[in-house]
Amino acid sequence: MSDWNAEHARWKRSIYEKATAKAPERKPHFETSSGIARPPVDGPRPDAELGFPGEFPFTRGVQPTMYRGRHWTMRQYAGFGTARESNQRYHALLKAGQTGLSVAFDLPTQMGFDADSPRARGEVGKVGVSICSVQDMRTLLAGIPLGEVSTSMTINATAPILLCLYAAVAEEQGVPMAALQGTVQNDILKEYIARGTYIYPPGPSLRLITNLFAFCAKHVPKWNPISISGYHIREAGSTAAQEIGFTLADGVAYVDAALEAGLAVDDFAGRLSFFFNVHNDFMEEVAKFRAARRLWAKLMKERFGAKDPKSQTLRFHAQTAGSTLTAQQPLNNVVRVALQGLAGVLGGCQSLHTNGWDEALALPTEGAAKLALRTQQIIANETGVCDTIDALGGSYHLERLTDELEAKAHAYIRKIDDLGGMVRAIEVGFPQQEIQDAAYTAQRALEKGDAVVVGVNKYQQPEPPIEGLLRVDESVEAEQVERLAQLKKSRSAAAVQRALDALRSQAKAADENLIPLILDAVKAEASLGEISDAMREVFGVHQEHVVL
Amino acid sequence: MSDWNAEHARWKRSIYEKATAKAPERKPHFETSSGIARPPVDGPRPDAELGFPGEFPFTRGVQPTMYRGRHWTMRQYAGFGTARESNQRYHALLKAGQTGLSVAFDLPTQMGFDADSPRARGEVGKVGVSICSVQDMRTLLAGIPLGEVSTSMTINATAPILLCLYAAVAEEQGVPMAALQGTVQNDILKEYIARGTYIYPPGPSLRLITNLFAFCAKHVPKWNPISISGYHIREAGSTAAQEIGFTLADGVAYVDAALEAGLAVDDFAGRLSFFFNVHNDFMEEVAKFRAARRLWAKLMKERFGAKDPKSQTLRFHAQTAGSTLTAQQPLNNVVRVALQGLAGVLGGCQSLHTNGWDEALALPTEGAAKLALRTQQIIANETGVCDTIDALGGSYHLERLTDELEAKAHAYIRKIDDLGGMVRAIEVGFPQQEIQDAAYTAQRALEKGDAVVVGVNKYQQPEPPIEGLLRVDESVEAEQVERLAQLKKSRSAAAVQRALDALRSQAKAADENLIPLILDAVKAEASLGEISDAMREVFGVHQEHVVL
Repeated sequence: MSDWNAEHARWKRSIYEKATAKAPERKPHFETSSGIARPPVDGPRPDAELGFPGEFPFTRGVQPTMYRGRHWTMRQYAGFGTARESNQRYHALLKAGQTGLSVAFDLPTQMGFDADSPRARGEVGKVGVSICSVQDMRTLLAGIPLGEVSTSMTINATAPILLCLYAAVAEEQGVPMAALQGTVQNDILKEYIARGTYIYPPGPSLRLITNLFAFCAKHVPKWNPISISGYHIREAGSTAAQEIGFTLADGVAYVDAALEAGLAVDDFAGRLSFFFNVHNDFMEEVAKFRAARRLWAKLMKERFGAKDPKSQTLRFHAQTAGSTLTAQQPLNNVVRVALQGLAGVLGGCQSLHTNGWDEALALPTEGAAKLALRTQQIIANETGVCDTIDALGGSYHLERLTDELEAKAHAYIRKIDDLGGMVRAIEVGFPQQEIQDAAYTAQRALEKGDAVVVGVNKYQQPEPPIEGLLRVDESVEAEQVERLAQLKKSRSAAAVQRALDALRSQAKAADENLIPLILDAVKAEASLGEISDAMREVFGVHQEHVVL
Repeated sequence: MSDWNAEHARWKRSIYEKATAKAPERKPHFETSSGIARPPVDGPRPDAELGFPGEFPFTRGVQPTMYRGRHWTMRQYAGFGTARESNQRYHALLKAGQTGLSVAFDLPTQMGFDADSPRARGEVGKVGVSICSVQDMRTLLAGIPLGEVSTSMTINATAPILLCLYAAVAEEQGVPMAALQGTVQNDILKEYIARGTYIYPPGPSLRLITNLFAFCAKHVPKWNPISISGYHIREAGSTAAQEIGFTLADGVAYVDAALEAGLAVDDFAGRLSFFFNVHNDFMEEVAKFRAARRLWAKLMKERFGAKDPKSQTLRFHAQTAGSTLTAQQPLNNVVRVALQGLAGVLGGCQSLHTNGWDEALALPTEGAAKLALRTQQIIANETGVCDTIDALGGSYHLERLTDELEAKAHAYIRKIDDLGGMVRAIEVGFPQQEIQDAAYTAQRALEKGDAVVVGVNKYQQPEPPIEGLLRVDESVEAEQVERLAQLKKSRSAAAVQRALDALRSQAKAADENLIPLILDAVKAEASLGEISDAMREVFGVHQEHVVL
């Protein structure tokens, strides 16, 4: 107890009070309805595994004041159809109190195909917005002050192109790159593991990623050049331990690649960010985030020798688990999302997407997206959980789960080290097979009734069809093709050719950073497909490895 | 740690294994998605304040296995219009997986007026079902196996009459009183404090209550003859500490009254039950239930010398807080109810009502009531929180809130002792004034924007009117009046007269237990209003005390 008191006094003086001097908390005084004071953090447990908020090993949170300072960023993933329709949705969400943008792109955009490509047919604007060129990006961001808002873009193989398009439009708005805030997902390893939107083989893919690290460190310092993502690993059926084990192993691979490319760890590690799922198991999910923070801090400090505390912190975006939503009795999803959202907040997320209740049926309608945002606002404003840092900390169950998850995730990282690193582990199909096994076990539990999903394998009821779902209009594709054709007529073909030639030539020289050349190309109005094709010619494309 | 290990081994042997030998847990093995085992309870903290599940002071739960054995009873409060309409709703809820009934009565039934009374006009069937006689009760319970289902009836001043009506219909079904399971609210003190549906002065009201304790102990041993209720105290604007302080002080007054009437504490205390609110402040609410359990256990053991552990356990029903629901953006209420419901479960409730999202606008529609039930089923089946007892136990924040709430509630009980007990405290307006002050403070916080209610004082938006709300048909009143008139024609007027005369005469003799006489009267088809009037003649009516 006296240990804790002394440690707490030290933390308060050296970490907490410095933070509150810079940015005051949301309220001068926090208390419950019964007038019980809420200090920033309750104790006692002074041990090194738990620590205090805002300091190593960050189990209790990455910031000294967490949500007592300000709430997480409420960031709803959205995008569909044309840039114009998506722009309208963003304005509606911002008006409803959303605090950050999150752009969903359609599959052709993610795979580096223009809307007029035969490979794009039937997919234009379907699962996200179609962006072929700087003119689409201009429409997408119209009326949005890019110097103020932070924007997350779920884009991987084509992440450098989309960030360049974003920067080009910002420049037109008069906002310099140094002022831009946001994230590109840019996590290609989990694409090979679980999600599938890769283009090039691992080598050149990792080169583009480290190119972006270096470019952002120098020119876009407030931008997160990667969001190392466990979300899709979990959606593919992994366990919580696998989700953090494989995601942090991906992180290790990126750090290794960047160090190999000559970067210094404290120059880029502070801008690595993460993206996790918030699944159903309430206590395990809260524990998962705490275990991930602690394990990453130790890896960065002990394995990579990171000195800057920022380089040791695992900052993460969370999204409620789309795979847990049901088409049956879909309003039940409001309940699932609320409970998962609460787990994300109690786990200390930096930003959060809460799914719309109709997402198991179609893209979310505006009403469903707003209710999902209201869910976050209710957690933030009505439940009191934001007034104490790591409110569940110390719970015997939670601390045990945290310890065990950390141990299990660490064991996965060691196994992947033994296999020669994540790229090699993917080649031999190790993470894929582990996830498949876990997914099979979960599916069996459902089929046997050992696991219950309300409305699916228990408590079924006859249901009327749901009306008012969002369907992307079939005319979107033709409209996009036509816009692109017009652009190709009006732009300078010679300028495009020059930019693409330069990109191709430098891509062949392994030491060149390609991001400035991609930026030149997008400003010359080269299309996303043309830029991707230029690199395909040099890098080749990745063929899926079939796991036996 | 070694202390805990020894204590845990003792608990496991002497409490837990005995319980599981009698009733096995829901699964042979509990674990998370990551394969982490979930033991029944995590430690370590062996101190007397925390203890283990199913033993004094019951901080961690009243049963040795809690929801690992079986889930709480899912009990949705419902009733409106005529007995026939309400009966249909009960069948729909049971079919949807509800595990217990909960009957809402209209105001005339609660106040002891028949549907044909001038005092009933405009209120028949409005906030609950109208029950005037055994014929209505028969219709209300048609097709429901009273030997199997447990039924809660929210009824106070007329609780003895309604329990007798229930027993009479059960007898017609061939179910003896000894087999009946359920609860009558029967908590008159909180009616004087906060809710207002009292009839007689405190003296005779307490006599009827202790009469029912004695009658149930002897004839209806599985029935809870009281549900000591903090719910309405909280809805009136109290704090969490006041809610448990005043409710447990009411409990002390009932125990005192029963002891004074000559009952032995261990003969009735094991069937005292409680009813609490689950409000917004997530951590404080979980702490509240733990604090209430511990404080009640100490009061029963130390103040009243209860020896039987059953007499020391605070078993409670919880209901999400109706007063937190908003007419604005009413689907937001699904979120509030889900989060509050989770707090009720993490707090260890024995039964739970989750409110319908449309209850801020009207009586819940069948769809809203089903979604509310699904909310409980999702918490029970999908979140994993039922697999570990007191999963939040040990959380530094939670344990501190638990300690402080217990201290604050205990201070209220001491203050009420000093005033001469709860009846006297109500007469001088003490609890009423404390609640008013708390409600005023909360209202001011809302008006100043210090407290945020999403959709009400922040994040407002224009809204279309809600369609499909449930409205009670105006014909209900005439229909009830007509049914009652028919009954009065067909029954034996002489038998009714004899039964009411006997009741009147015994009511004058202070030592007589009135329940058998009320049972005779309901079987003779005397109406609820006639029975209440007979007692009004003897007991008089209570006049509201105006707090200055």
